[in-house]
Amino acid sequence: MSRTVIHGGLVVTASDELHADVLIEGGRIAALAAHGTDAAESWTADRSIDATGKYVIPGGVDAHTHMEMPFGGTYAADTFETGTRAAAWGGTTTIVDFAIQSVGHAVREGLDAWYAKADGKCAIDYAFHMILSDVNESSLKEMDLLVSEGVTSFKLFMAYPGVFYSDDGQILRAMQRAAGNGGLIMMHAENGIAIDVLVEQALAAGRTDPRYHGDVRKVALEAEATHRAIQLARVAGSPLYVVHVSADEAVAELAAARHKGLPVFGETCPQYLFLSTDNLAEPDFEGAKYVCSTPLRPKEHQEALWRGLRNNELQVVSTDHCPFCFSGQKEMGRGDFSKIPNGMPGVENRMDLLHQAVVEGRISRRRWIEIACASPARMFGLYPKKGTIAPGADADVVIYDPHAEQTISAETHHMNVDYSAYEGKRLTGQVDTVLSRGEVVIDQRKFTGRAGHGMYTPRATSQYLD
Amino acid sequence: MSRTVIHGGLVVTASDELHADVLIEGGRIAALAAHGTDAAESWTADRSIDATGKYVIPGGVDAHTHMEMPFGGTYAADTFETGTRAAAWGGTTTIVDFAIQSVGHAVREGLDAWYAKADGKCAIDYAFHMILSDVNESSLKEMDLLVSEGVTSFKLFMAYPGVFYSDDGQILRAMQRAAGNGGLIMMHAENGIAIDVLVEQALAAGRTDPRYHGDVRKVALEAEATHRAIQLARVAGSPLYVVHVSADEAVAELAAARHKGLPVFGETCPQYLFLSTDNLAEPDFEGAKYVCSTPLRPKEHQEALWRGLRNNELQVVSTDHCPFCFSGQKEMGRGDFSKIPNGMPGVENRMDLLHQAVVEGRISRRRWIEIACASPARMFGLYPKKGTIAPGADADVVIYDPHAEQTISAETHHMNVDYSAYEGKRLTGQVDTVLSRGEVVIDQRKFTGRAGHGMYTPRATSQYLD
Amino acid sequence: MSRTVIHGGLVVTASDELHADVLIEGGRIAALAAHGTDAAESWTADRSIDATGKYVIPGGVDAHTHMEMPFGGTYAADTFETGTRAAAWGGTTTIVDFAIQSVGHAVREGLDAWYAKADGKCAIDYAFHMILSDVNESSLKEMDLLVSEGVTSFKLFMAYPGVFYSDDGQILRAMQRAAGNGGLIMMHAENGIAIDVLVEQALAAGRTDPRYHGDVRKVALEAEATHRAIQLARVAGSPLYVVHVSADEAVAELAAARHKGLPVFGETCPQYLFLSTDNLAEPDFEGAKYVCSTPLRPKEHQEALWRGLRNNELQVVSTDHCPFCFSGQKEMGRGDFSKIPNGMPGVENRMDLLHQAVVEGRISRRRWIEIACASPARMFGLYPKKGTIAPGADADVVIYDPHAEQTISAETHHMNVDYSAYEGKRLTGQVDTVLSRGEVVIDQRKFTGRAGHGMYTPRATSQYLD
Amino acid sequence: MSRTVIHGGLVVTASDELHADVLIEGGRIAALAAHGTDAAESWTADRSIDATGKYVIPGGVDAHTHMEMPFGGTYAADTFETGTRAAAWGGTTTIVDFAIQSVGHAVREGLDAWYAKADGKCAIDYAFHMILSDVNESSLKEMDLLVSEGVTSFKLFMAYPGVFYSDDGQILRAMQRAAGNGGLIMMHAENGIAIDVLVEQALAAGRTDPRYHGDVRKVALEAEATHRAIQLARVAGSPLYVVHVSADEAVAELAAARHKGLPVFGETCPQYLFLSTDNLAEPDFEGAKYVCSTPLRPKEHQEALWRGLRNNELQVVSTDHCPFCFSGQKEMGRGDFSKIPNGMPGVENRMDLLHQAVVEGRISRRRWIEIACASPARMFGLYPKKGTIAPGADADVVIYDPHAEQTISAETHHMNVDYSAYEGKRLTGQVDTVLSRGEVVIDQRKFTGRAGHGMYTPRATSQYLD
Repeated sequence: MSRTVIHGGLVVTASDELHADVLIEGGRIAALAAHGTDAAESWTADRSIDATGKYVIPGGVDAHTHMEMPFGGTYAADTFETGTRAAAWGGTTTIVDFAIQSVGHAVREGLDAWYAKADGKCAIDYAFHMILSDVNESSLKEMDLLVSEGVTSFKLFMAYPGVFYSDDGQILRAMQRAAGNGGLIMMHAENGIAIDVLVEQALAAGRTDPRYHGDVRKVALEAEATHRAIQLARVAGSPLYVVHVSADEAVAELAAARHKGLPVFGETCPQYLFLSTDNLAEPDFEGAKYVCSTPLRPKEHQEALWRGLRNNELQVVSTDHCPFCFSGQKEMGRGDFSKIPNGMPGVENRMDLLHQAVVEGRISRRRWIEIACASPARMFGLYPKKGTIAPGADADVVIYDPHAEQTISAETHHMNVDYSAYEGKRLTGQVDTVLSRGEVVIDQRKFTGRAGHGMYTPRATSQYLD
Repeated sequence: MSRTVIHGGLVVTASDELHADVLIEGGRIAALAAHGTDAAESWTADRSIDATGKYVIPGGVDAHTHMEMPFGGTYAADTFETGTRAAAWGGTTTIVDFAIQSVGHAVREGLDAWYAKADGKCAIDYAFHMILSDVNESSLKEMDLLVSEGVTSFKLFMAYPGVFYSDDGQILRAMQRAAGNGGLIMMHAENGIAIDVLVEQALAAGRTDPRYHGDVRKVALEAEATHRAIQLARVAGSPLYVVHVSADEAVAELAAARHKGLPVFGETCPQYLFLSTDNLAEPDFEGAKYVCSTPLRPKEHQEALWRGLRNNELQVVSTDHCPFCFSGQKEMGRGDFSKIPNGMPGVENRMDLLHQAVVEGRISRRRWIEIACASPARMFGLYPKKGTIAPGADADVVIYDPHAEQTISAETHHMNVDYSAYEGKRLTGQVDTVLSRGEVVIDQRKFTGRAGHGMYTPRATSQYLD
Repeated sequence: MSRTVIHGGLVVTASDELHADVLIEGGRIAALAAHGTDAAESWTADRSIDATGKYVIPGGVDAHTHMEMPFGGTYAADTFETGTRAAAWGGTTTIVDFAIQSVGHAVREGLDAWYAKADGKCAIDYAFHMILSDVNESSLKEMDLLVSEGVTSFKLFMAYPGVFYSDDGQILRAMQRAAGNGGLIMMHAENGIAIDVLVEQALAAGRTDPRYHGDVRKVALEAEATHRAIQLARVAGSPLYVVHVSADEAVAELAAARHKGLPVFGETCPQYLFLSTDNLAEPDFEGAKYVCSTPLRPKEHQEALWRGLRNNELQVVSTDHCPFCFSGQKEMGRGDFSKIPNGMPGVENRMDLLHQAVVEGRISRRRWIEIACASPARMFGLYPKKGTIAPGADADVVIYDPHAEQTISAETHHMNVDYSAYEGKRLTGQVDTVLSRGEVVIDQRKFTGRAGHGMYTPRATSQYLD
Repeated sequence: MSRTVIHGGLVVTASDELHADVLIEGGRIAALAAHGTDAAESWTADRSIDATGKYVIPGGVDAHTHMEMPFGGTYAADTFETGTRAAAWGGTTTIVDFAIQSVGHAVREGLDAWYAKADGKCAIDYAFHMILSDVNESSLKEMDLLVSEGVTSFKLFMAYPGVFYSDDGQILRAMQRAAGNGGLIMMHAENGIAIDVLVEQALAAGRTDPRYHGDVRKVALEAEATHRAIQLARVAGSPLYVVHVSADEAVAELAAARHKGLPVFGETCPQYLFLSTDNLAEPDFEGAKYVCSTPLRPKEHQEALWRGLRNNELQVVSTDHCPFCFSGQKEMGRGDFSKIPNGMPGVENRMDLLHQAVVEGRISRRRWIEIACASPARMFGLYPKKGTIAPGADADVVIYDPHAEQTISAETHHMNVDYSAYEGKRLTGQVDTVLSRGEVVIDQRKFTGRAGHGMYTPRATSQYLD
């Protein structure tokens, strides 16, 4: 069994900052020892990594990605191969992607298709949530099986009528089932029925530019759906995880529910923290690059999201990575914003953007690791294998240089998409070296991994609810 | 033109308590003069009514009745003739009943049917709201016509899928239309889609007793729908009137919206103020007498409703009068609470029950008149013809004896239904004499009116929104 | 007994808009009759006033004035004679001024001094609140006597330590006493102890300009004191009336308390509705003209106040009229904002400014009369003698021309002060004629009243709490 | 340097549950290694402790004790010697006690007195907060010195006028100073001025029994003071830590402030979580045993406190250990509850009572360690020396047997007080062995420590605010 020592770094976890060396035996972290102790000094290793002046952090856990997802007649541009490689470059060592049940098909069918798509392709470990597009007696029963085999979370949509949409009865039934089998319901909380009316009216009135995408998907309709999902979960006695929260009023709904003691959780994404409707209004159809749902919001919402992250009204930052090239894909919506494929690239940028928030004093180092690694791992049953640096955990470790400077650009990024949503943004901090289960997959900014190293990782039920 | 003087009484309106005589010329109030002034003394009249020791109050306005309404294969037991006669006995001189558009039919068709049903039958004046069961392009256009001819309010249902139910898109469109034409949207706010799931589950589990009607129609699902209706109205830029509010959390949603400055209003009914789930749990299927929707709630909700009435978070008390006989009608639901016709009698009891609240110190005399007469008249465009005693108003006047004692009973009431929801309840205060447009229809507790005296009264748009 | 008829006008009260003639017998309103009725046509009168095209409204009730008040070594510039004359010009026919108990003196002593000051001087009717500056066993006992003789409200200060300030124990005791004797506690709600620290620090740091007056009297410290007063009233079981509410967060505290059912009320003033910290920052020490406490707030607070007035979170608009000339009085604070006498002129402008809000669509005509006439009269036990036009009420009537145009200016106003806070402001609407108990005191914009016509008016306890 | 290994146990920290062995070198934790790894197997040690089947947890940090505190003419019955020994028995290895500045004396004088009292007496490590009883220019300056020497938190009282009480100006000044020097203001939040009025009234009315202690110290007056402290901290720009929160409404104030992003924190104590006014009402003056301030509350408040602990609206559970013997001390208040010394014993019971909450499913194991060890250590600048088990931390370790059963009793406890507040309460879980900086002070339930082992521990500023 090979032994690796990472020495001299500052180990940062969700709870601790330790001047400690890390000993890896095989694919796992075997021990931590304080710098300079006899214990640390006595270690011998096959490989020694010098982390002096750097952070030693858990590999990122991105709990919301959509590799190769079909949407509106096209596919998200990153395959599991390109997408997970880009994730590794960005310091993320686990993704949880979404398998999709299609209407009229069995849940199992969708899941198997996604197993097959990812198999042998991934550079880092991966797991699956399940999107339920057709909640019925049969799919409810399948939920139990999925939980038992490690697919322990189920996403429902209050938006996209006719595609992913579930009505309130279907939602209630799925929540009841989850309350019984330990599954966690994830919700896309927007009132899609009402939004579709506004879309139709906007187009009829000639408001076809990408910026109207943000206009019709009202804050009030995100807040409404969030409130409704909470009340349905309350009736069902189930927990609830709201994905990609973007609006201040939605945060307020989550906060009010949590104050009442309800097991309600929220995720936001870097695009909502760093971008705004100003981007959606960029000229020459460039706004299309920023079309995603929930939509970007006016700038003042950002502060509410940061505050929510600080005081734990929001628990997780994921990417909702779902890239479509501007050329040929986003362009499908010229003249009709409703035809723009919804989604943005980001799996490679998350750890860095959140570190920038540390640099700017918005969050502490520990909170950075918590929202990007530990909480998503706990929320989705991957902890403590993933999300922390502790004896027994998988040796998914990032050596992070907090002083390096970089500029984000499509020219240098590794995602398979022709633009960056953060083009030209300058950041302090950069991934230096990444280990996945003890193997070095990024070595001082060179990719040394391979498709197929990444393993499918079945998940336990949410530990956030202990 | 005949002249009537009502002298010696205490005139109580929503805003004033006056020691004044009232002069009626023809069907209208011509003048008020302080007792004993030269002005008062100089009046001559054809008829003089001595109101010494009594209150002289505006006739009640009951803004929510369902005479002869079809429901679940039967009809509400009061016709316009029996129901309006009972209303007169109870001191109510105007009702606003609900005409119903059926699915697949024109709005006009429903309205005409209701015009015909009521024509020539009513003992007191009446008007109509319109229930929209099928919101589409054509019915949206008809809304404009109805507003212009005096049907200025439109009820939508978030409950009863397949019957009255509108989805959120239909609701949004109807609200947008009302925002344009001055109509007022009235909402039955319960999440019927979710409730139907719970009904099905309850019945499948053998919970068939009437008390489960209250159990499945959760407080959380009334609060949810109330919140949703408010958010949709906010998006549409329209006002909103929520009917039969029964739950404390629904009051809280209205209060929060009003605090933000939204034009949102709420109605409750005597059954929610005086009855509770204890009644629904009465043995031997007696609970069926109390089946209505929204359902009766646990007793502790009553205090929130009274508080809401006191601090104007709720504005109106109507009856939702919709009586079904226990024998033969309510009994249709033995063994399946979902088959019990929804509705309760009450048009005759409202003024007395609310006076009892005055006696018990829950509300002031002026607030009694406001919530039972003035506010419903203003809310639905009948003010100042109806709802007050003032020069120029219709002479709809009740001489009310605040000291009389009575016991409510099906044996003595005048509604066409075989039970009373308040059987045996002792009250202080009773209607003595009632004038409708200057004609005495109840004369010292004798009915002197007639079917056909009551006239259809087209309504202006809501004055509550000035 | 002389008879006056006002004919042809639109009578506007807090609740009604009536096309009615008004008959006055002696000093009281005897009758109202609809235009053109036999009743109206039959009236004969000594004097007939044509109000065609005008409003006939109740005389204004200004529940918060400080005539000749001693403050910081000087006196408010309006005497009871000049101040009440100006009030009449502005359509106000009743003021409630504040008698002051000094520290170490009996309550009675203060009250008698104010009786003497006002006696024989007033052009319109007047009453007194009592300021308690020294709550102790003896003054608590005196409260009962005052209530019984018609001084039924008591003002306490949480600000001005060493002058008017009461500590929380004194406040609690006074509230308990009021809970027993029916008195109403009025509160100046600012944390004066904390503010005085900030004043001292500001002056020490050289921040001596008038704008720092607004800076040190923080919104948070008004909200704090408002919350504290509410909690103390809750412990005492007493109602509470908060004077001159200026901050959005203070409105929110009142709203939250009212939602819980607490008998809590709030007053604001025209200066908070129309002026802002922009005025306090006017150059050349002009900001001193706008120094009052609570202070003017940033503009965005105005919307919260208007909203509070619309949804009855605030009930009354008074002036807090307390004028000090710029020259010689306000100037005492050059180089030290804390030495600027606190107070502004306004008794003449209130009815017009609020009518302007009607013109601009902020409030309805009826709400204008409610907040300016009826509610203050009810709140302070003057209703229905004052505050409405109804048979039996005092004939305090204003003929108001809603179409007249005017420009506010110190050159034309009648208050005894050398500046106007609204200099140059253009308004639509103007007082035409004013009757006080049936006597014409302003006759088509000529003063026909006299010092001494105004009578002291003992008050009942608050009717707002029925 | 001696080496100790603790093997086979489940290491539980605020964030992790690890199957790991712990290596101690000297007084510090040198390393953790997963059970059975080569790293773990290779360790040699002088002493080996078998923790199989047991928890290995950080020693408790009790951030609120009052050893030998003078109060009402007597002294808390535990000396630093007896109190810290009892703490060790209960699994607590650090206390933060309160040094007291007396009115009219320098802060330093008080601090030195407490240094002297504790010196050489303690069985476990200790630190000090400083109570400021006399905030003035001089004591404000001393605050800076204290922060620099490791006394980084300052307690103020809004209760106890004439003893510890600070007025709002003093509070504001101290908060401003803390905002500048990094100190943390701790607040006893009760409106003592108002409470003293109620105390006087209760005694005058013959309500002298201990239960009236709970009666006069109203929930509303705790909520009021909490709100006031928050607003003052907001004005000062300082963080705030509210001690011994006992009322649901106080939790709500903290929650609302945190939702707004304010750095506001709350502590509660086991007595508020497990006891209630029922105890205060025990007959034969037994209620006196439960007299403390804030007081015990009606049972329904407990749920709000547990909820607050779960959702991080409350962060810390301390004991406020301040024991007075029933005989001779509590008895001083027979016939006058206000003379009962305020305080209860508890330093020995905290870890066990909170573990019982784990057993009963109220909190998770990790949250147990967080609220009892990690958060108090972070809050008061002792982390990561104290409060966790991690390389580099002090070797303050408890071997906890989660299956042992015990019954709390004064007969068996080690606190120097003649009663237990939890007499007869049966618990699952018990401390087995305790190490303080690597030395075994409790060895399988035998005391092996000594007075003087415990060292004074200067503190950094609060790390909770990173």
